[in-house]
Amino acid sequence: MYIAAFDIGGTKTISAILDGDGKILVQETFPSITADWKKNMQKCVDIMKCQMAELKVQATDMEGLGISLPGPVDTDNGVLIYAPYAKWEYIPVAEYFRSQLGFETICCENDVNACAVGELRFGLGKKYRDFIWMTVSTGVGGAVVADGKLIRGGKGYAGEFGHLKVEYEHPEVCSCGQLGCLEAHGSGTALIRETRRAAEADPEFAKALVEAGKKADGAGCAALCKAGNETAQRIMHKLGVYLGRGISYCVNVLNPEAVIVGGGVAASLDLLMPAIRETLQTDAYVKMKDTEVVQTPLGYDAALRGAAALVLEYGKR
Amino acid sequence: MYIAAFDIGGTKTISAILDGDGKILVQETFPSITADWKKNMQKCVDIMKCQMAELKVQATDMEGLGISLPGPVDTDNGVLIYAPYAKWEYIPVAEYFRSQLGFETICCENDVNACAVGELRFGLGKKYRDFIWMTVSTGVGGAVVADGKLIRGGKGYAGEFGHLKVEYEHPEVCSCGQLGCLEAHGSGTALIRETRRAAEADPEFAKALVEAGKKADGAGCAALCKAGNETAQRIMHKLGVYLGRGISYCVNVLNPEAVIVGGGVAASLDLLMPAIRETLQTDAYVKMKDTEVVQTPLGYDAALRGAAALVLEYGKR
Repeated sequence: MYIAAFDIGGTKTISAILDGDGKILVQETFPSITADWKKNMQKCVDIMKCQMAELKVQATDMEGLGISLPGPVDTDNGVLIYAPYAKWEYIPVAEYFRSQLGFETICCENDVNACAVGELRFGLGKKYRDFIWMTVSTGVGGAVVADGKLIRGGKGYAGEFGHLKVEYEHPEVCSCGQLGCLEAHGSGTALIRETRRAAEADPEFAKALVEAGKKADGAGCAALCKAGNETAQRIMHKLGVYLGRGISYCVNVLNPEAVIVGGGVAASLDLLMPAIRETLQTDAYVKMKDTEVVQTPLGYDAALRGAAALVLEYGKR
Repeated sequence: MYIAAFDIGGTKTISAILDGDGKILVQETFPSITADWKKNMQKCVDIMKCQMAELKVQATDMEGLGISLPGPVDTDNGVLIYAPYAKWEYIPVAEYFRSQLGFETICCENDVNACAVGELRFGLGKKYRDFIWMTVSTGVGGAVVADGKLIRGGKGYAGEFGHLKVEYEHPEVCSCGQLGCLEAHGSGTALIRETRRAAEADPEFAKALVEAGKKADGAGCAALCKAGNETAQRIMHKLGVYLGRGISYCVNVLNPEAVIVGGGVAASLDLLMPAIRETLQTDAYVKMKDTEVVQTPLGYDAALRGAAALVLEYGKR
């Protein structure tokens, strides 16, 4: 079985062909051409044609094409409503690729939903039918899977975990314009901000970063935290508490079997986990305070493999 | 079509027969016999037999029996796991009634889930396929309906809205033992506590209650609030803000089309609504801040009609 997949992101785009188990057979990545969406999509088409030739398959031999997109999607019509980073609006993604590549089955989804469907088909979905998928990266996003199905909500906005309010007393301003959001307190952006503030306020901490050959950013903080630096540990702990608050809300609302974390910050999940677990003990309802929180096994390919999973999950509709 | 239904609560029990549209044809209420669950169930049996005789129907002519129960339920086996108020544990409800009444189809659910299924079948479910059901009464409970289906979560605890943390700075102790829960800040119990505190701290407020012929309780506060008393308005506003915080979490996680509120405090929803709406404006994600919040049209019969709805929703499994 062959499935075509595009993971179109704000910074990079991936074209790939996978098998029915989600294994990537061929893959090529290029920097997204945000200035002109058609050029970006055309490049996808060119690469996919080469990849199909390489594997000696034709569109009609394949299950279909799945596409992960960097913003809200009208899944019925395969339209990208907008892409915050690339500033694209109302892109008829499915229509474009149908005319250019000839796939009959084309499934589009936003990247986080795609990750959750990927998890369902190729990852921990074999173990869990009720889970929360949470991306912790520059921002914080998420998706809800209940009873083995992706939950989109009334208008497709389910899983906006990044805008759960986790700080009322000393709230930071979020990119959405509101105050105290998880994205403003428990994201990669928050980690960088807190590390910079600490480096400005505390010459010792700034010196420790320099001595470790690190910048005042997330990676720098994570490295010092691992090395036992107390300021870095304090920053990481605070980030973990905020993530724990947001996760507790999700747990109390949905009683997932597990919270699966992906995104860049997920790589430092072991550093955040003590504070996350501590917070779940006090903030999640007593019967659910031991809910599992785990890193996705799909790694950096979560959205790409999710794109392929969309075809298996929704292709026959 | 005839459906038998019991709404077995911690304080009162109702036996009824309804038609397929959820209309109550006969109904009888008695105080729950908490000291002995078998006596309580036997009384249900006796009344139901009279009601069936009254309508000249037999169990075999009816769709089945639906039962709303006051605590977590093992729905597969029809067992009430425990009832916090009555202190019952592991009651084989379905088995008992099957042997006594001869219904083949018997569906059991906890009361809040039953309310949500009732809403789905007989209430606003005709309008909404994605909604949150929230009971605001002595405590705060809830249920989640997504894509037209009740979501139970991994272990049946989905909808524990009462234990969402809504106050970190000056948290009150909740009945669950944790701090800052919605149930400790946005329930009927919280309303009584705040009204008493205000009456103790402020002789003017205590006097206003006496003059209005009211006690220092929820009804007293609601009455003074309506009459324009500022202290009462402040108490109600605070309660509304906390409910708004909890509702915002649910909205951000699930993007429901509506939040449907039931329970005793729901009768004062108009007094709480300004603060709830205000809080949704700042706390719910921008695209969802105008999510509808409405009182259930099912009124005090929500759980009873929900019990009947269970038979329609799950009876054919």
